[in-house]
Amino acid sequence: MIQVRAFRDGTPVADDLTLGDAERLIDEERCFVWIDVTDPQGDEVDALGAIFALHPLTIEDAHHRHQRPKVELFEGYAFVVVHPLAMRDAPDGGELVDQELHAFVGPRYIATIRYGAEPFSLKGVEHRWLGQPEMLAAEGGGFATYVLVDEVVDDYLSIVEAFEDRADDLEDGVFEEPVTEDEGSDLQERIFRLKREVVRLRRFAAPLRQSLDMIQEEPKIAGSKLQPYYRDVSEHVLRVTELADNIRDLLTSLLEVRVSQVANRMKKLSAWAGIILVPTLIAGVYGMNFANMPELGWSVGYPAALGTMLLSSGILYVVFKRKGWL
Amino acid sequence: MIQVRAFRDGTPVADDLTLGDAERLIDEERCFVWIDVTDPQGDEVDALGAIFALHPLTIEDAHHRHQRPKVELFEGYAFVVVHPLAMRDAPDGGELVDQELHAFVGPRYIATIRYGAEPFSLKGVEHRWLGQPEMLAAEGGGFATYVLVDEVVDDYLSIVEAFEDRADDLEDGVFEEPVTEDEGSDLQERIFRLKREVVRLRRFAAPLRQSLDMIQEEPKIAGSKLQPYYRDVSEHVLRVTELADNIRDLLTSLLEVRVSQVANRMKKLSAWAGIILVPTLIAGVYGMNFANMPELGWSVGYPAALGTMLLSSGILYVVFKRKGWL
Amino acid sequence: MIQVRAFRDGTPVADDLTLGDAERLIDEERCFVWIDVTDPQGDEVDALGAIFALHPLTIEDAHHRHQRPKVELFEGYAFVVVHPLAMRDAPDGGELVDQELHAFVGPRYIATIRYGAEPFSLKGVEHRWLGQPEMLAAEGGGFATYVLVDEVVDDYLSIVEAFEDRADDLEDGVFEEPVTEDEGSDLQERIFRLKREVVRLRRFAAPLRQSLDMIQEEPKIAGSKLQPYYRDVSEHVLRVTELADNIRDLLTSLLEVRVSQVANRMKKLSAWAGIILVPTLIAGVYGMNFANMPELGWSVGYPAALGTMLLSSGILYVVFKRKGWL
Amino acid sequence: MIQVRAFRDGTPVADDLTLGDAERLIDEERCFVWIDVTDPQGDEVDALGAIFALHPLTIEDAHHRHQRPKVELFEGYAFVVVHPLAMRDAPDGGELVDQELHAFVGPRYIATIRYGAEPFSLKGVEHRWLGQPEMLAAEGGGFATYVLVDEVVDDYLSIVEAFEDRADDLEDGVFEEPVTEDEGSDLQERIFRLKREVVRLRRFAAPLRQSLDMIQEEPKIAGSKLQPYYRDVSEHVLRVTELADNIRDLLTSLLEVRVSQVANRMKKLSAWAGIILVPTLIAGVYGMNFANMPELGWSVGYPAALGTMLLSSGILYVVFKRKGWL
Amino acid sequence: MIQVRAFRDGTPVADDLTLGDAERLIDEERCFVWIDVTDPQGDEVDALGAIFALHPLTIEDAHHRHQRPKVELFEGYAFVVVHPLAMRDAPDGGELVDQELHAFVGPRYIATIRYGAEPFSLKGVEHRWLGQPEMLAAEGGGFATYVLVDEVVDDYLSIVEAFEDRADDLEDGVFEEPVTEDEGSDLQERIFRLKREVVRLRRFAAPLRQSLDMIQEEPKIAGSKLQPYYRDVSEHVLRVTELADNIRDLLTSLLEVRVSQVANRMKKLSAWAGIILVPTLIAGVYGMNFANMPELGWSVGYPAALGTMLLSSGILYVVFKRKGWL
Repeated sequence: MIQVRAFRDGTPVADDLTLGDAERLIDEERCFVWIDVTDPQGDEVDALGAIFALHPLTIEDAHHRHQRPKVELFEGYAFVVVHPLAMRDAPDGGELVDQELHAFVGPRYIATIRYGAEPFSLKGVEHRWLGQPEMLAAEGGGFATYVLVDEVVDDYLSIVEAFEDRADDLEDGVFEEPVTEDEGSDLQERIFRLKREVVRLRRFAAPLRQSLDMIQEEPKIAGSKLQPYYRDVSEHVLRVTELADNIRDLLTSLLEVRVSQVANRMKKLSAWAGIILVPTLIAGVYGMNFANMPELGWSVGYPAALGTMLLSSGILYVVFKRKGWL
Repeated sequence: MIQVRAFRDGTPVADDLTLGDAERLIDEERCFVWIDVTDPQGDEVDALGAIFALHPLTIEDAHHRHQRPKVELFEGYAFVVVHPLAMRDAPDGGELVDQELHAFVGPRYIATIRYGAEPFSLKGVEHRWLGQPEMLAAEGGGFATYVLVDEVVDDYLSIVEAFEDRADDLEDGVFEEPVTEDEGSDLQERIFRLKREVVRLRRFAAPLRQSLDMIQEEPKIAGSKLQPYYRDVSEHVLRVTELADNIRDLLTSLLEVRVSQVANRMKKLSAWAGIILVPTLIAGVYGMNFANMPELGWSVGYPAALGTMLLSSGILYVVFKRKGWL
Repeated sequence: MIQVRAFRDGTPVADDLTLGDAERLIDEERCFVWIDVTDPQGDEVDALGAIFALHPLTIEDAHHRHQRPKVELFEGYAFVVVHPLAMRDAPDGGELVDQELHAFVGPRYIATIRYGAEPFSLKGVEHRWLGQPEMLAAEGGGFATYVLVDEVVDDYLSIVEAFEDRADDLEDGVFEEPVTEDEGSDLQERIFRLKREVVRLRRFAAPLRQSLDMIQEEPKIAGSKLQPYYRDVSEHVLRVTELADNIRDLLTSLLEVRVSQVANRMKKLSAWAGIILVPTLIAGVYGMNFANMPELGWSVGYPAALGTMLLSSGILYVVFKRKGWL
Repeated sequence: MIQVRAFRDGTPVADDLTLGDAERLIDEERCFVWIDVTDPQGDEVDALGAIFALHPLTIEDAHHRHQRPKVELFEGYAFVVVHPLAMRDAPDGGELVDQELHAFVGPRYIATIRYGAEPFSLKGVEHRWLGQPEMLAAEGGGFATYVLVDEVVDDYLSIVEAFEDRADDLEDGVFEEPVTEDEGSDLQERIFRLKREVVRLRRFAAPLRQSLDMIQEEPKIAGSKLQPYYRDVSEHVLRVTELADNIRDLLTSLLEVRVSQVANRMKKLSAWAGIILVPTLIAGVYGMNFANMPELGWSVGYPAALGTMLLSSGILYVVFKRKGWL
Repeated sequence: MIQVRAFRDGTPVADDLTLGDAERLIDEERCFVWIDVTDPQGDEVDALGAIFALHPLTIEDAHHRHQRPKVELFEGYAFVVVHPLAMRDAPDGGELVDQELHAFVGPRYIATIRYGAEPFSLKGVEHRWLGQPEMLAAEGGGFATYVLVDEVVDDYLSIVEAFEDRADDLEDGVFEEPVTEDEGSDLQERIFRLKREVVRLRRFAAPLRQSLDMIQEEPKIAGSKLQPYYRDVSEHVLRVTELADNIRDLLTSLLEVRVSQVANRMKKLSAWAGIILVPTLIAGVYGMNFANMPELGWSVGYPAALGTMLLSSGILYVVFKRKGWL
């Protein structure tokens, strides 16, 4: 589905526009045109290619999802791929949904292609465009792209902070010693899955830094006035990747601690087994059927045997405690 | 076996050409010559060397397989080594077959040498050459090489995505807790083998980026019009290596999870052993042959002993559950 | 809360200044103005923005905590974010408190914004400003910032050295073999937590190097006379990060040693279990109720059986000791 | 021992030359002089220093083995250190022998110093010099050095490929499940030792790349005609290091798989122990000596007890199989 | 304690010099002055600062130990920090003693400050200065510094080679299978401690490379004639760090092998336990008190039971051997 919007001096013009209008308005001096395509059909992408005179490679790329986050500069326009992410609730604590978004950005236009069943909402982006009409009018595509990427990265920051909280929960879970085995094994799976999502987030975020550098290299699109803005987003991307790296390392350490906790408990169990085996041996001795076992006839034989069992276990208990085996 | 083809203005000329024709046509202005050698014999490679005036080192390299993926620029031509990969079905999920391919590329010719029992098929490559005759006519060897490498890298992408699916399957396998030991031990081997294939793919793919940069440094071979095309392949190579890195890390984590799962189960088994050892000790006690064991004469002695056994096991069970040891 | 101070030729002027005074004094030639905001309110930050003509992005950043340590150069001023750290006593050995601090630095002014319940104390910083009035008068904001960052980094150094001591304690704890299991499991948690704090410290310290490089790029703020000073702080930052890396590696190794110690003890316990199982089997044999067991009738049967038990255990003990299993 | 050879126009001159002849021939225009020292004595090295006017540092270096692989450029000559490697058969599969070799290379001479009990044989190198007299005559020391390094690196390639085969064998060994414990523990040691040799090979090979770059920086020694040759060796060095890295990673993974295989078997053993412990408990129960145990009097008591034992074991077996514990 | 020496044309002048003499001689043209301070007092450092017109930061640094190895260039002099290391004998194989040394180096003077209870001996350094009077006269501070750093790095080389030997010993220890448990656990600790010392050595050595590069950037201190000398030390530093890296990796692998050896032995012990548990069960069966157990009455019952026990154990033994569990 294609929607066409236009802004004259940063203010939206009447809403019912066609692709034909768009083509006309792009040439008008004070206008900024926004074409938004959701769930793109092949011919729609081709139509965009024709209107904006896109390079065949760009058109081919736009036909397919699963591009890396990137910015490619072509004669007169930039091709931008970002991966907005949404957090979908899941029983084990939320899963990332990739809402891939492609954009062709020229000095006076932006064309966005949004993929997926629940594409990235551009409401917030549009709201900020309308909130700074003078910037939209003066900087056009460069400003529009900045706002778009900034919104995406702000979502990344929220997500990475939510991940940080979940990692803290998992850490508490590990050190509070889980109540049941099921929880313990669940912890392990949750650590693994969170780590995977963190790595996934990082993979989408990290290439953006280079992308933002590339946009700034094209003065026709990102004028010098936009430089602090792009630097600011770039800084946020860096924060996302650093936090993601931290969380990943923390989770790796947690998994190691978990393994060593399990080993610790096995050691404890083995020590207890040792404590039980000794009186079992004593019982075995006095269960032997030799004709000539004087102790068996003693009146204090039985209590003495029980006492010996208790004593041996007690000694073992103390020794193991002292050695830190129990 | 040598096959010679030629294209005049991008359109194929009559098919029955000899090496002699090739030598003549290379000098013709609007012609592009393609010599394809499969299962090369020593003298065939030498013949190519003579026709294209290749450096002795290039000829020596072409005599041997097992070159690194690379591009080397010589006076007037480039020597290209790529490793197309095919996926051969195997009982444990597919194995990569290396179809090493060497090419000498000049402005107006390409000579391909294909190795192995099942060499890389150039049908798709030729199809795309024929589909863009104007590019083949204008850009010659640079375009032909781009198409060749692009096809190889497209195969890499398919393979790496297939690997991603297999890794997801393995992940499910690990967390669904395998039904039998055989499957469990099989998982481990499959994780290891997939990891090895991923590393192998990465090894063939990663050096291509530098290779593509080198080709673009030689304006006689890759004109500026080809730049976006080469950048595009380079981007795909990057995607392959990034995905490969991700899969490898995922598999490493999976193997760790697997080890900790095994440890977990041993802990559980140890706890169960502890639960059984205690009543065994009690039974041992009442199996002793002391003359004077009053409990043995009690009418409720036996049921009381059984009850004590059950009770002790029950208490241990509850304690272990609470401590998360079971 | 806003406090305004001013220094004429490096010497403090009368203390009761308002924001209005500040605005006037900034334009006065021999003056250096310091505005300090703690627990900033929205309108206070905006007021600073108006006085110093700050870029909207700077103002927006200053409204929010949780910025990365950074220096951003704008027209005529630098925006500095550092994270002073305080060590708060905690039962498991001290926790870092982040006292984020933002500063706007111009040639003749510095504005500091301090966050948190216990913001970073600037007493020491001010003391050093007053101690070198000629530097404050000559170098203004560049010198003020140097002193500020130097104080922060000095705290980092103290902290990292305290961490080093704690790591040494933990190392001793691991090799002295902990007396009780609780201590052992505690060691593990303490190693993990110290490692996390070290990583956190590193995360705050490392980006400062780049920040210090950036300030020196702006000659209006950091004159050439300040260069050795900035280089000196940069060197200290490097020392902090190197020590942090060392401690982290040491702790990782310690955790591994810990795991292998636990495995060692389990092996020992298993060997002891083996030593007990053999006489238990012998006892079991002579507890069998066969009618025809000649040994049972022997007068030396019982002592012989006991002797065999002792002997078998003794042999196992010696064998295991020799093999290093015990 | 010193041997002197000389080549006029690439062809060897009469063999019986002294150091004095060498000194004279170096100044002759069409001559190339080769001095070869094996098992060098102090005075021999000093003599070389005098003849070729070597820097005191070079002479000092040449007095000692255990130099890093390197090339150092001095006024008029290059000092080259390489470490040819030979594979010595050993019971556990071959060990590398370091045959350190130093060379001083000037435009018209090369002096080689070979160390060790079995120094690197220069037969192959000399053979190739004689095979390309025109190159030796035209390029002198640069060509001689190329051939020397190329021979060394070719050996590296053979070795690294032999290592690859051994790694494949070890992999098969791990997954075929070793027949005896001795083999299993041997595998571990062999993996470790192979890994160490691979790392050693890599350490000798990797610095060569930088060395080769350095030689090419000195046009007096390596003319532009030699550039493709040096690039070719450099490519081979890269292949050696890449293969070495791969093998090392593979071996590391193998060691991990091995650890997890051992854990798997212990789990299996623990499960079997559990299966035996339950009937042991039942036997213990009916071994108790209570006066009033009605089951003991039943005629079907004994077979029923045996049946219960079998049944309980059987149930455990099935449960463990289903849970993948066995 | 301060000692003043001076060299005229590289030859020592009369020994009894005061700081006042030093100040005078520095201005004399053919003189080189060396001031050596051990166990520095505050005022001594300040005095040096005054004589050589040192920057306040240098003076402050020199007041404190625990600086990073570094070279800082100031107007007219360089501030050098190195950490000579001595090996102190210790029960577990030697410990490194840090003998921090600071030096101020000008074209015609060097001032050394030595810290610690056993400061670094400069006998060897002075000996080499006297041995090359022409170099000391011509190159002054640059040469003096080269000799100083070269002596320090030579010690590093000796130490790293000693560490290599110890690592080889530890490797033998691991594979020879330690005789007693104490040795085994000791091995682990020794591996850990050696690794820590290696990392420490590396930390002191690695920054020297950058330091040496910095000195060479200051032509007033290190003239072009000294370049090969500095390059030579730099090469040695590289060798130290590479060897240190190798040893560290080797030790890490050793620790892993150690863990897997322990696991292997536990597996073996578990298998032996399994072999004992089966006859124990059989004994338990015939220890039951059922009235109706026909086997008990058989005359061959007892030998048959013993035979069954032996047989079952024998079968298990063979099976476990075949499966590689024993």
